[in-house]
Amino acid sequence: MGRRTTEPPISWLMHAALARPALISLAAGFTDNVSLPVSATRALLNQILGSARSGRVALQYGSTAGDPKLRELTAAHLRKLDRQAAASSSSSSLVPEPKSWTRTKDEDDPHSPARLLITSGSQQLLYLTTEALCDEGDIVLVEDPTYFVFLGILQSRGLRARAIRLERDGLSLVRLERTLQLLKRRGELSRVKLLYLVSYFQNPAGVTTAFEKKSAALKLLKRFEPAAGHPIYLLEDAAYRELRFAGQDVPSALRARGGADRVIYAGTFSKPFATGARVGYGILPEPVFAAVKHIKGNHDFGTANLLQQLSVRTLASGDYARHVARLQKRYAHKARVMKSAIKKYFPATVEWWEPEGGLYFWVRLPRGIPAGIKSKVFRTAFKNDVLYVPGEVCYADDPARHKPDHELRLSFGNAGEADIREGIRRLGMALRRVLS
Amino acid sequence: MGRRTTEPPISWLMHAALARPALISLAAGFTDNVSLPVSATRALLNQILGSARSGRVALQYGSTAGDPKLRELTAAHLRKLDRQAAASSSSSSLVPEPKSWTRTKDEDDPHSPARLLITSGSQQLLYLTTEALCDEGDIVLVEDPTYFVFLGILQSRGLRARAIRLERDGLSLVRLERTLQLLKRRGELSRVKLLYLVSYFQNPAGVTTAFEKKSAALKLLKRFEPAAGHPIYLLEDAAYRELRFAGQDVPSALRARGGADRVIYAGTFSKPFATGARVGYGILPEPVFAAVKHIKGNHDFGTANLLQQLSVRTLASGDYARHVARLQKRYAHKARVMKSAIKKYFPATVEWWEPEGGLYFWVRLPRGIPAGIKSKVFRTAFKNDVLYVPGEVCYADDPARHKPDHELRLSFGNAGEADIREGIRRLGMALRRVLS
Repeated sequence: MGRRTTEPPISWLMHAALARPALISLAAGFTDNVSLPVSATRALLNQILGSARSGRVALQYGSTAGDPKLRELTAAHLRKLDRQAAASSSSSSLVPEPKSWTRTKDEDDPHSPARLLITSGSQQLLYLTTEALCDEGDIVLVEDPTYFVFLGILQSRGLRARAIRLERDGLSLVRLERTLQLLKRRGELSRVKLLYLVSYFQNPAGVTTAFEKKSAALKLLKRFEPAAGHPIYLLEDAAYRELRFAGQDVPSALRARGGADRVIYAGTFSKPFATGARVGYGILPEPVFAAVKHIKGNHDFGTANLLQQLSVRTLASGDYARHVARLQKRYAHKARVMKSAIKKYFPATVEWWEPEGGLYFWVRLPRGIPAGIKSKVFRTAFKNDVLYVPGEVCYADDPARHKPDHELRLSFGNAGEADIREGIRRLGMALRRVLS
Repeated sequence: MGRRTTEPPISWLMHAALARPALISLAAGFTDNVSLPVSATRALLNQILGSARSGRVALQYGSTAGDPKLRELTAAHLRKLDRQAAASSSSSSLVPEPKSWTRTKDEDDPHSPARLLITSGSQQLLYLTTEALCDEGDIVLVEDPTYFVFLGILQSRGLRARAIRLERDGLSLVRLERTLQLLKRRGELSRVKLLYLVSYFQNPAGVTTAFEKKSAALKLLKRFEPAAGHPIYLLEDAAYRELRFAGQDVPSALRARGGADRVIYAGTFSKPFATGARVGYGILPEPVFAAVKHIKGNHDFGTANLLQQLSVRTLASGDYARHVARLQKRYAHKARVMKSAIKKYFPATVEWWEPEGGLYFWVRLPRGIPAGIKSKVFRTAFKNDVLYVPGEVCYADDPARHKPDHELRLSFGNAGEADIREGIRRLGMALRRVLS
């Protein structure tokens, strides 16, 4: 029982944070507290529960796939995001949007509400998809580093990860091809079911995957499918997409050639609106949609309808768009605060990647200076009352490479400006002490 | 992919119901619509979101195990239910409640908040528990008939069910022992991980398991543990417990000898309060608690905090207790309406079990008269615009016995009084036509 379900390494961090009130946590992926949409949510819930008719709908069971109106609004929202991103993109790999008067079949339209499933945060979509597609011993390709809770899913389900080097604009296509070839030579391609990409302001490294790379990756996967004997899907985790505060949005892989058949897109309203009213969604091609919906039926037969009705009103009222715009400004400001503090307090030998969105800075110490949970850096920082996520927990167990341990993930999501400044100052002190 | 995840047989029923507005559905397990607590929920949400402080807590992430205050209130609520039930029980198998001043260790107290996990409905707890305890090919003992969505979990996870005959006061202990002995002889006891009981107003048969039976079942399982080589848990699904409208509450198996170590109790606030604001919970002994919490972390890292904060206020304000009392009266009335309609319209050769709570009547046709989806009874009923759940979908695939197909589950949960009367009249017509 539970033999593969060991406690994740960073859960004690969370406990530690709770137990030491002076501690500044730059670790947790919690969102900004003061900008949470308390009064907007209150007003919308009052509308919903102000009439017996809509109130009863919200307090009754819904259906497993989700509220039809929400599925429609969400699909339209995503279609619009992709349309806007495509308009500012010059990529020749973009597939033109299907024209509604020629679109006779839902299955040709990657933004059809018919393939949209509402979930309890996008996390649940990641879990359900992995459960539907992968059997014990199967292989999932991931970025190196990647989202550590996804690694937790793989570990607890007995799946193997193969890590693809991450570059400043997304995964390395050269490495992806090399890995696929290696797996083919070893006769293991039949175990490869999925490539998982956190494609916008990646957790942990803050990287956004270029559209051309997503498109090329899809093409590569397709090339290896005959040898695999089955489809190899691209699971695009876009949880941070709408938290962009610099640069241009990038179209999702749904808009790439082959995307309609092979891309599973995971989105969410949690991070860009309210993490406490968790509603996420997925776009899934058949037969994955049917399989995932069925498994969700077994998990919970549908996400709480009250939260779904709230999301409907949030989107339809324009509150969502207004809040996202405010939030982007807010995170832009907090990222600037963190950046200037890093410049001021970190030793010059420390490298870092500045994000264009999301919640994270990715920091790299000189090689040979470990930053893991048992390292001097971590212990000194902890003594100085500041907490970060050691980069090493974001690396898959992949025998093909040595696991880097000299990186840190710093979040400006939850901490206030003063705490960000002070936290970075304390961390800088710790780094100076260890590096000198 | 998804090879074990076939569409459940009754999902087309739901679609059929939506497509035919004249259809009266006595099939769905939806709860009573007009009594949903719309204004109470509105008032409580206004309290929560009326202050920035509590509003932000509600709209931020929580922790995986659930809000500490909610875990405390829920544990206290359950302790009280069990205390009251125990007070009116004369069973000698009852374990005395641990006295707080002698209670030094949480692990001795089956009602400790430390072992309480908040979930997205009790359904999620059923899923998580099965996932944590059972590997592919394992055996789960279930009542015969049992909750069909649980059978769906077993099927999609590649688990085998062994069905234990259900009597008017719960599972047959004779059959339970016989099945365990048979499995032992066959060397399959090592695959048995779980006995699943829907112990209050069972779905589908409306049966409540006598406390003595739960206690004896636990003792039996314990006796076979040495041969199994591991603990065999009792998963007690108490989803309908608080929907009692006649008779006395029965203590949970947590109060039986050995219950603290071996019982996993699944409860919910969904059905007794609002199914659209789905909050359920589980009581789990270690090491199951830790394993299930970890898996929940991978599924969704915690149930939506807004719903949890709503549950906190619902319980603390007394709204919950008031609503449950109202709901019990309402269901008592609707059950009476259904009973008198059945008496009036059903042929005398049709047997039925009257429940003391929950949402269902269980109806048995004379042997040889099938009621399944392809049967004449079902088709005639459907033509008459009334829908029920064929009993056959509630029976596990167990090669050891012939699957009965002459039963019906009728729900008075969702339909209004007039529809219950008219639905039973139409069904009665269909039955007369086929039986004559």
